[in-house]
Amino acid sequence: MSRSIRLAVIPGDGIGQEVVAEGLKVLGAVLPAGTKVETTEYDLGARRWHATGETLPDSVLEELKGHDAILLGAVGDPSVPSGVLERGLLLKLRFAFDHHVNLRPGKLFPGVKSPLAGEPEIDFVVVREGTEGPYVGNGGTLRTGTPQEVATEVSLNTAFGIERVVRDAYRRAAARPRKKLTLVHKNNVLVHAGHLWTRIFERVGQEFPEVTTDYLHVDAATIFLVTQPQRFDVIVTDNLFGDILTDLAAAVTGGIGLAASGNINPSGEFPSMFEPVHGSAPDIAGQGKADPTATVLSVAMLLEHLGLTAEAARIEAAVAADLAERVDGPARSTSQIGDALVTRVAG
Amino acid sequence: MSRSIRLAVIPGDGIGQEVVAEGLKVLGAVLPAGTKVETTEYDLGARRWHATGETLPDSVLEELKGHDAILLGAVGDPSVPSGVLERGLLLKLRFAFDHHVNLRPGKLFPGVKSPLAGEPEIDFVVVREGTEGPYVGNGGTLRTGTPQEVATEVSLNTAFGIERVVRDAYRRAAARPRKKLTLVHKNNVLVHAGHLWTRIFERVGQEFPEVTTDYLHVDAATIFLVTQPQRFDVIVTDNLFGDILTDLAAAVTGGIGLAASGNINPSGEFPSMFEPVHGSAPDIAGQGKADPTATVLSVAMLLEHLGLTAEAARIEAAVAADLAERVDGPARSTSQIGDALVTRVAG
Ligand SMILES: CC(C)[C@H](C(=O)O)[C@@H](O)C(=O)O
Ligand SMILES: CC(C)[C@H](C(=O)O)[C@@H](O)C(=O)O
Repeated sequence: MSRSIRLAVIPGDGIGQEVVAEGLKVLGAVLPAGTKVETTEYDLGARRWHATGETLPDSVLEELKGHDAILLGAVGDPSVPSGVLERGLLLKLRFAFDHHVNLRPGKLFPGVKSPLAGEPEIDFVVVREGTEGPYVGNGGTLRTGTPQEVATEVSLNTAFGIERVVRDAYRRAAARPRKKLTLVHKNNVLVHAGHLWTRIFERVGQEFPEVTTDYLHVDAATIFLVTQPQRFDVIVTDNLFGDILTDLAAAVTGGIGLAASGNINPSGEFPSMFEPVHGSAPDIAGQGKADPTATVLSVAMLLEHLGLTAEAARIEAAVAADLAERVDGPARSTSQIGDALVTRVAG
Repeated sequence: MSRSIRLAVIPGDGIGQEVVAEGLKVLGAVLPAGTKVETTEYDLGARRWHATGETLPDSVLEELKGHDAILLGAVGDPSVPSGVLERGLLLKLRFAFDHHVNLRPGKLFPGVKSPLAGEPEIDFVVVREGTEGPYVGNGGTLRTGTPQEVATEVSLNTAFGIERVVRDAYRRAAARPRKKLTLVHKNNVLVHAGHLWTRIFERVGQEFPEVTTDYLHVDAATIFLVTQPQRFDVIVTDNLFGDILTDLAAAVTGGIGLAASGNINPSGEFPSMFEPVHGSAPDIAGQGKADPTATVLSVAMLLEHLGLTAEAARIEAAVAADLAERVDGPARSTSQIGDALVTRVAG
């Protein structure tokens, strides 16, 4: 059987270029004979914005639709005003392609140092809603620049949008050994959105009697993430809370150098996008210092999404083995880590 | 000189009663001869709501105004729908009394075990805005209970409200040895509110050239709180981010059993309110197991606010000494800890 994956690649800014190169190397090495990757690279990010003022032209958005998946490195640079690339490129992609399941595993691999004392066992996944909530960009300012200025941000939440991501999270929980799902929100303060989430969470739960559920306010969830991270199996939460919890989750599982993510459109109507959780890290860009592991793990999520489950598992195993041996090893460059992973997945 | 403090006491629910009793014992013991405390206790919380349906009657709100300060234990109980007491009592007080400076120290006392490895030095304070942002309660639902339901939450932010809390935070930073102030927001996504915060933060900063500043997105701030908590001196942030960061801060500094807070109206137009960050903990209520330290430290903040600086410092020192000796000591009851602190502040 011969198969071809049409992959759109957005290396982006800073270390994005470097880590994506390693991700593609590992992808090439892990694929079964007969499976080809056709990559198309898209030049998007700070450089293009400076040169042309464009963040994501409609024509590029159209072209991206013709791909099976997107691999993104990182976008952003201090020279670009905050929000321009985030809203104009990254979030535009997530919203345009209806990436409502923002999937972010929080796993502490053996041998990886956590900032938490006592080496807790951590293995959960956050299902972050990706197309609603405070991220919709709805809001504005009045009397801008005056002492009477008012700024609003409107969080929009729909039963439709919540139900689909909640059901996705239940399915994932049901498929895991511990079968536990935690809803995180702040329904004692954000009563309108919070109670909608809670009602839907309870109703959909009736379809999954095998899944144990609980609820935590977001503030309490941050406490448990550092005092009892092993209590979590699957977490489902809104866009903003998911953003916060997954950075914290990355921190307690060894840092954002290891944290992968998938922006998933489960129906397949639009291509899903995979990216490391970390940013473009301009301070270390171009020096071969970036850890490509988060990108490589994002490639594994990409393969999993495309049904190449065995290949995804091989990458995960290679990363686990690499991390376990890293403990007392010398520092390695971005490409040395990539090469080591290539050897492992090919071997 | 004789002086009298008119103190309104709201013990509230669960362990609220127990910890407030110890707070008042320590308060009585630390005050200089000639200073009296006239306490009026207000029965508010879950019990009253069940009995009368009232959360905070207008008449009580009126009476509370006649006090120099309010000491609150904790409110809430699983038998009350989420949001009823939070919005109807706690937040109603914070908004009615314009408690715009929600002050929350994050300090790791010597001898206290942090969940973080390596015993980092942690000593910062969070200045959380208390009367705006996503907490205003502005929002609603449409087509409630149908598959077409939409729920909104509107975050309201004013130049007036931001400027006053930002200036307060600069003043506090300027008065501390390290003179460092970090703004935390999410201005790359919540661009309207975020940029208003950022602009005001930069403008007010010109009045405080001696204060070093930086900016962090809220997600990055949670990372640093566990990987590099020593980098923080004063943090200023919005109501919701402050809620999240201060629970996390409490976790890394030894738990919410130790975290104090002040809901401060700096002008003195209305009484300020002091409360432990923890909740009513119904699971351990009535068993003498609750740690009253957070309440005792809140009493210290109350005294500081009323200008009784030496007394506040005596309580802090007593708590520090008690915590340092706790390390290998036996478990003590709520009142045993209170008694130990009474002995120390009196001695
Ligand atoms: C860069 C930013 C828009 C983004 C987000 O807030 O979602 C990032 O923090 C993330 O978590 O992917
Ligand atoms: C109980 C709740 C309304 C409150 C808040 O969200 O402010 C609490 O979490 C706190 O931090 O004081």
